[in-house]
Amino acid sequence: MENSNGHGQLATVAAWNFTPNDTLLGLTALSVRSVLSRVKARMVEDGARPVVPMGHGDPSAFPCFRTAPEAVDAAAEALQSAKYNSYSSCVGLEPARRSIADYLSRDLPNKLSPDDVYLTSGCTQAIEIICSALARPGANILLPRPGYLFYEARAIFNGMEARYFDLLPEKDWEVDIAGVQALADKNTIAMVIVNPGNPCGNVYTYEHLAKASAAKLFCVAETARKLGIFVITDEVYAHQTFGEKKFVPMGVFGSVAPVLTLGAISKRWVVPGWRLGWIVTNDPNGVFQRTKLVDSIKSYLDISSDPATFIQVGKFFGMIQVKLDLSCLQNIKDDMDFCCRLAKEELVVVLPGCAVGYKNWLRITFAIAPSSLEDGLDRLKSFCLRYSKPNK
Amino acid sequence: MENSNGHGQLATVAAWNFTPNDTLLGLTALSVRSVLSRVKARMVEDGARPVVPMGHGDPSAFPCFRTAPEAVDAAAEALQSAKYNSYSSCVGLEPARRSIADYLSRDLPNKLSPDDVYLTSGCTQAIEIICSALARPGANILLPRPGYLFYEARAIFNGMEARYFDLLPEKDWEVDIAGVQALADKNTIAMVIVNPGNPCGNVYTYEHLAKASAAKLFCVAETARKLGIFVITDEVYAHQTFGEKKFVPMGVFGSVAPVLTLGAISKRWVVPGWRLGWIVTNDPNGVFQRTKLVDSIKSYLDISSDPATFIQVGKFFGMIQVKLDLSCLQNIKDDMDFCCRLAKEELVVVLPGCAVGYKNWLRITFAIAPSSLEDGLDRLKSFCLRYSKPNK
Repeated sequence: MENSNGHGQLATVAAWNFTPNDTLLGLTALSVRSVLSRVKARMVEDGARPVVPMGHGDPSAFPCFRTAPEAVDAAAEALQSAKYNSYSSCVGLEPARRSIADYLSRDLPNKLSPDDVYLTSGCTQAIEIICSALARPGANILLPRPGYLFYEARAIFNGMEARYFDLLPEKDWEVDIAGVQALADKNTIAMVIVNPGNPCGNVYTYEHLAKASAAKLFCVAETARKLGIFVITDEVYAHQTFGEKKFVPMGVFGSVAPVLTLGAISKRWVVPGWRLGWIVTNDPNGVFQRTKLVDSIKSYLDISSDPATFIQVGKFFGMIQVKLDLSCLQNIKDDMDFCCRLAKEELVVVLPGCAVGYKNWLRITFAIAPSSLEDGLDRLKSFCLRYSKPNK
Repeated sequence: MENSNGHGQLATVAAWNFTPNDTLLGLTALSVRSVLSRVKARMVEDGARPVVPMGHGDPSAFPCFRTAPEAVDAAAEALQSAKYNSYSSCVGLEPARRSIADYLSRDLPNKLSPDDVYLTSGCTQAIEIICSALARPGANILLPRPGYLFYEARAIFNGMEARYFDLLPEKDWEVDIAGVQALADKNTIAMVIVNPGNPCGNVYTYEHLAKASAAKLFCVAETARKLGIFVITDEVYAHQTFGEKKFVPMGVFGSVAPVLTLGAISKRWVVPGWRLGWIVTNDPNGVFQRTKLVDSIKSYLDISSDPATFIQVGKFFGMIQVKLDLSCLQNIKDDMDFCCRLAKEELVVVLPGCAVGYKNWLRITFAIAPSSLEDGLDRLKSFCLRYSKPNK
């Protein structure tokens, strides 16, 4: 179509060949950020009261959750040395990979080598890389519900199907093994677990993860092996457990079914904005080499951006999942409605469970300044009382 | 297939459902890093002589190319303030976007707003994002040859076809407009130019880029408009020009055809390891909004990792492209053979032109320490003399 130089005709949409990918446009709805935007859409910050943000897990904004000074000093020193301004190799600097290998090996029977470690720009990019390396047309991946919908977004973007298995609330959110077996077929490549659990905060016990004994037929590692699928374990919250449960990394069972461990430096460094994570292969039997998954990861790293060369990231902790009992409330339609009204009326932000695949639950982050937390819980209580059905 | 717990049967490849994506495995060959690995495969660093690295553009390793102290101080201060440890928004922090908008607007007739700026993890991720946002099945994208093959890798990974138009060496590497028109069809989404040119180091003059006058029918902006395609301009080397040619950003002509400008902070900051780049929309007519390209970019950003919150990156300069006259040499098969032997025999690394789509040329980076450069050129000369055919 020939256009003149007239301004009017330049406005004709038909003159441009580009049309958007509707699948991509739809994926944004899966992100926590986008759900929270909707929750906050009618919230007005009038200055009379501060907003209490319990919807997104990022305590780094609060002075009481400050990263350790030695982390900041180390990063600042690296900056000023001018030794770390160059491009890294595509798998990451060797000393960093060695440190991570040593750190993780403390909890593993088979010691890791630096070559088992691939540095990424946060755990987010680790997920992007894994989904890109695994994907092939017609493949599917098994994901936990509730869970982190980012996996689904990346799986779909790469042309894979996402299938959901349940975590069982009455069994402390353990994997529904029978459900996993029912979902898997020959096109199933892998299953994802989140250990410790986001959003539920659970920790898988050793028995649950351990190799099957006569009494324990159903567990994650054996199940994966029989199904011929890999295990992806998202351990970004590793070692951030409360109470008596010991954290056990899934990689302990890498000799039963090969495991990809995703993580970031998490226990003491509250710096999610620094963007450094990893993919680690726990695979003493060398399955990933033979099946060329390692080559696929390296190929994708070779055509992707690298993390900044000198920094560390920490993740955060302190979230709980709460079921919303709508039968006790009036004028509240569902979890999204609850959260939107709460944000608008009380300037308290919590995450509706639909954002983690669990409608009519709420995810509340309590890792905020203590005074803010008290204030937020008071306001939440007022809100609930206001919407409670009168007792009969 | 049921496996026992016996070790032997765990080794059966057929037991695992994953098979690699051969297309992905093939893409790694397009990366500069991988070509240089092949060049250096038989080079042995014996300590007798230092390696002279003229194959990869990264002068940050050399003390004589140190970034400005105020950049380092600013970043270190940001680290220590603890104000920038949090997650960013998916488009990047507003003050940074505003700064980049102001900086780029100095050279543009239409002032940019911060909302025209999207921060990325280096220019590399900017390319990933654009290819992901643009891609749809059956689409193609036009790329310059010689050029940066990373565009092809990302285009193919996203299911698009890469088609190459020529840069004309006899016209200072100008775009072969007739070639572009011959290649484009209704599935062509965009064309890429690199301004200033990598690997050729050219700068497009104003007339070449400018809106067509009666005497200048063929130029990039008009061509794109008529073809209904967008222009992606990779300006990562902006303002790093030598001699008298003034740098003109392609965005000046965003009102003729909508332009996506990719860049990174480049002139004074020699810090490619810091990973901060941008995508900027130069589009006064709002075409990107109407065709939902902006929504597509934001959707992809929403499901991708972000750049670190506080840092800057610079890119580098100083490369030339040289044609290899094989008729003057003996026992040298092609550019790759030349480079491999040079690396092995003289410990000098230059990039074979096949890595930029231009077989039997060489790309030589001269932005290294001056003494190293002299040494490298002497060794290169010895090498060429050694392999020269005797004069008849």
